[in-house]
Amino acid sequence: MLKAGLPADWKPDKNADQPVYVQIIEYIKEKIASGDWPVHSRLPTQRAMADTWGVNRSTVITALDELKAEGLIETVAGSGSIVSNNTWSLLASAAPPDWMSYVQMGEHPANSQTVQAINTYENDPSIIRLGTGELTPALLPYREMEEILGSLQGKLLHLGYSEPKGWLPLREAVSAHLRTRGIEAPPDSILIVSGALQALQLISQGILRQGSGILLERPSYLYSLSVFQTSRMRLHGVPMDEQGIRPETLARQKQMRDAALLYTIPSFHNPTGTLMSEERRRQVMAICERERLPILEDDAYGELWLDEPAPFPLKAMDHHGLVLYVGSLSKTLSPGLRIGWIVGPQPVIERLADVKMQTDYGTSAFSQLVAAEWLREGRYERHLQDIRASLCKRRAIAMKTLQRWFSDIAEWQEPKGGFYIWLRLKQATSMKSLFSRALAKRILLNPGYIYDYADSWHLRISYAYASEEELESALYELSQLLRA
Amino acid sequence: MLKAGLPADWKPDKNADQPVYVQIIEYIKEKIASGDWPVHSRLPTQRAMADTWGVNRSTVITALDELKAEGLIETVAGSGSIVSNNTWSLLASAAPPDWMSYVQMGEHPANSQTVQAINTYENDPSIIRLGTGELTPALLPYREMEEILGSLQGKLLHLGYSEPKGWLPLREAVSAHLRTRGIEAPPDSILIVSGALQALQLISQGILRQGSGILLERPSYLYSLSVFQTSRMRLHGVPMDEQGIRPETLARQKQMRDAALLYTIPSFHNPTGTLMSEERRRQVMAICERERLPILEDDAYGELWLDEPAPFPLKAMDHHGLVLYVGSLSKTLSPGLRIGWIVGPQPVIERLADVKMQTDYGTSAFSQLVAAEWLREGRYERHLQDIRASLCKRRAIAMKTLQRWFSDIAEWQEPKGGFYIWLRLKQATSMKSLFSRALAKRILLNPGYIYDYADSWHLRISYAYASEEELESALYELSQLLRA
Ligand SMILES: Cc1ncc(COP(=O)(O)O)c(C=O)c1O
Ligand SMILES: Cc1ncc(COP(=O)(O)O)c(C=O)c1O
Repeated sequence: MLKAGLPADWKPDKNADQPVYVQIIEYIKEKIASGDWPVHSRLPTQRAMADTWGVNRSTVITALDELKAEGLIETVAGSGSIVSNNTWSLLASAAPPDWMSYVQMGEHPANSQTVQAINTYENDPSIIRLGTGELTPALLPYREMEEILGSLQGKLLHLGYSEPKGWLPLREAVSAHLRTRGIEAPPDSILIVSGALQALQLISQGILRQGSGILLERPSYLYSLSVFQTSRMRLHGVPMDEQGIRPETLARQKQMRDAALLYTIPSFHNPTGTLMSEERRRQVMAICERERLPILEDDAYGELWLDEPAPFPLKAMDHHGLVLYVGSLSKTLSPGLRIGWIVGPQPVIERLADVKMQTDYGTSAFSQLVAAEWLREGRYERHLQDIRASLCKRRAIAMKTLQRWFSDIAEWQEPKGGFYIWLRLKQATSMKSLFSRALAKRILLNPGYIYDYADSWHLRISYAYASEEELESALYELSQLLRA
Repeated sequence: MLKAGLPADWKPDKNADQPVYVQIIEYIKEKIASGDWPVHSRLPTQRAMADTWGVNRSTVITALDELKAEGLIETVAGSGSIVSNNTWSLLASAAPPDWMSYVQMGEHPANSQTVQAINTYENDPSIIRLGTGELTPALLPYREMEEILGSLQGKLLHLGYSEPKGWLPLREAVSAHLRTRGIEAPPDSILIVSGALQALQLISQGILRQGSGILLERPSYLYSLSVFQTSRMRLHGVPMDEQGIRPETLARQKQMRDAALLYTIPSFHNPTGTLMSEERRRQVMAICERERLPILEDDAYGELWLDEPAPFPLKAMDHHGLVLYVGSLSKTLSPGLRIGWIVGPQPVIERLADVKMQTDYGTSAFSQLVAAEWLREGRYERHLQDIRASLCKRRAIAMKTLQRWFSDIAEWQEPKGGFYIWLRLKQATSMKSLFSRALAKRILLNPGYIYDYADSWHLRISYAYASEEELESALYELSQLLRA
């Protein structure tokens, strides 16, 4: 049997970045590839290699095992190791895996280009965010939050894994809070979630069959997400008027689409700002009751009324366990808290709690503790009053500025609460181009097509985020761009 | 045209629970159903109904709209409304939607019965938890946590929505911390997640194709979850020995199974407690490099060595961007914090960050802030030393008790760190029955079949959770049950 030679002119470099055994593997491969060590030749003994290279025998064994696993050498009784293969493909040197193909392979759809761009630019402090759906930092209660954190001595009671439905004292506080909004929900029918978005995620994965039909307002916040599409749900938009979603076609749509759910944002709808009237609420409830069409009510903005209290949520009129109700502290208190809740029939809540346990083992104990402190003892209520006053002022500025610069080129309604003005341009415009031209002026827009793929007429303007001066100047700039 | 009569003997009850318009709907339905108001008959005028019933006309309209939507009446020009249908199915009175069918329909699989039972019993304080994978409350640093919370004045800097990858100061702290474990990871290649479980979830949804093959140790923690199965991944178990996953078949399995990933827990493996040796780590890395088989390294327990420092993670030997590394503060500091991280090639991290944004808009700002405080300035390191001392003591108690009561009926290895002893019974036992019999004695077990569906020989014993006395007494009880 041919014996492979062992030149004395090479030794692994112990100071190199590459581990010694990898260097040995590379060396042997080179020998095989070059034909120095042909197929069927016998390798030097382990001891010879260890001595010549000045390494432990175990290092040699590691390298040989690897070459064996790769099919390049094999062990033959009585003869040590022989070269068994010199296929080039096996010899190709290490390269990183093709991560890009992994990235493209993943099941979960990527955020839309525009949403990704918005997520990125939102971290650029030099940009004026004219559509952002969150309270401006100056309205976030930093001082009070720190006060609360400082007052927690002796109150930190649970640092372990959470109960599936969330920390009981927080569920109790949420239950008491919901009573002020006309909703009777015992703590057992409440699930604490890490924000309303997670609520939608859990509902999508936990209780809906693949391919279910979902009725929703058109436009809707939901169109900007892929949370339902991920489970291959079909979204069927229902038109709105100034009272909210239009009820006439609901029953027919439910039947035609075999819809499993109506998703609605009755109060200060995202993106249109619409407040569903009391009467419309009754109609929608009645139709859904008759049709046994469950409602997913997203009440993220419900407490942000500005002129007079908004009608109670649909959940408050729900006598048949028809409504899954979703609330959140993101829009009123702090998005960073990541606290929201789902209220619904107990078997549904239990199912969603099980899915939540499988998703992230529950919500941050710290966030739950802080949220409970806010909800107790009227602190949250007082904070809401401050926020309403500030939003009122900002809304007035936005209205005045729109009046001044947009009355001939756009239409809008004054919202009765929430963050948004749904600006309708009188002339169709290329929104993609407007988006870029605005960005060139350091203004970030939320174009209507995020919320309704066919839209090229609307912009979602938020009076909650940009500073009051920026709101004025950016709106002026925008009007100039539109006139250009 | 037949005209429907309007008896004066009925009026809606304004004090009833049911809204007035619903009472009207029910009343008209009864009239139609009973045949009092036959098909094609003309309804009384809206005014007549409003007057007779003493309600607003708008209430009558609400009820009629609803009956119209349901297809029971229709509007005919010049004649007001007529009865158009008296199908019984349309007349059936309101009932809640069939939520149970929704609960069963959801895409996401439920936790296994045993895991659900464990999740439930874990909230019962009268139960001794002999398998629980978390530090006992007495080892959680409540006092220091409160100290930290009290020291945050002026440090609360971000209450808004988070950057997709997580709060930069925390990513910087994690980056510095990882350097002590041999891992060079710039903050840009780190994604903050809400615990290691979420990391697995994001990876499963973000970068793996439906139906991908996953190689993993058998048994494995991963078998107790449905995180990969949810995306229809196939799990292919690879046998272990006392050095960790066995390398010989890895390359073949990769090819045979067309595997996309190797999931491994090299340090203090869950459930076996095994520590992968340095040499085995090198072999596994070498094979995976050659095969371009990416590794998902779960290092939840890596810092919990008890006798001597564990070898560095695989990620520390990774020169080709092969390893996605997952870390967590749950096992060392607090599960309630819900803080973990993923380290990997930037395009992968960016993709996972986008999926995370679509899942829950980022991790709690409070948890991120607290975690950063721990990781800075050696606090975490000091805490680890305390924990190790306590775990060492607990391990000794477990070993002594096992020695005393189990040496003739079971076998085990002393773990070098982590929480777990993988107790192998000498006789096969019905684990389901053992589970129930132990529960009757208020002892909660983690049977081996949770971690390997075919297992009926093992129990995962944890020395981290039960109090030291309970550990002794419950192990004794268990030995009695096994002898019975
Ligand atoms: C209607 C609506 N629902 C839910 C959310 C998500 O809120 P959270 O931060 O609670 O996840 C938003 C935020 O934009 C929203 O506008
Ligand atoms: C190996 C392993 N990985 C991940 C986890 C999940 O930990 P986390 O609380 O960080 O989500 C656990 C917890 O049991 C575990 O044992």
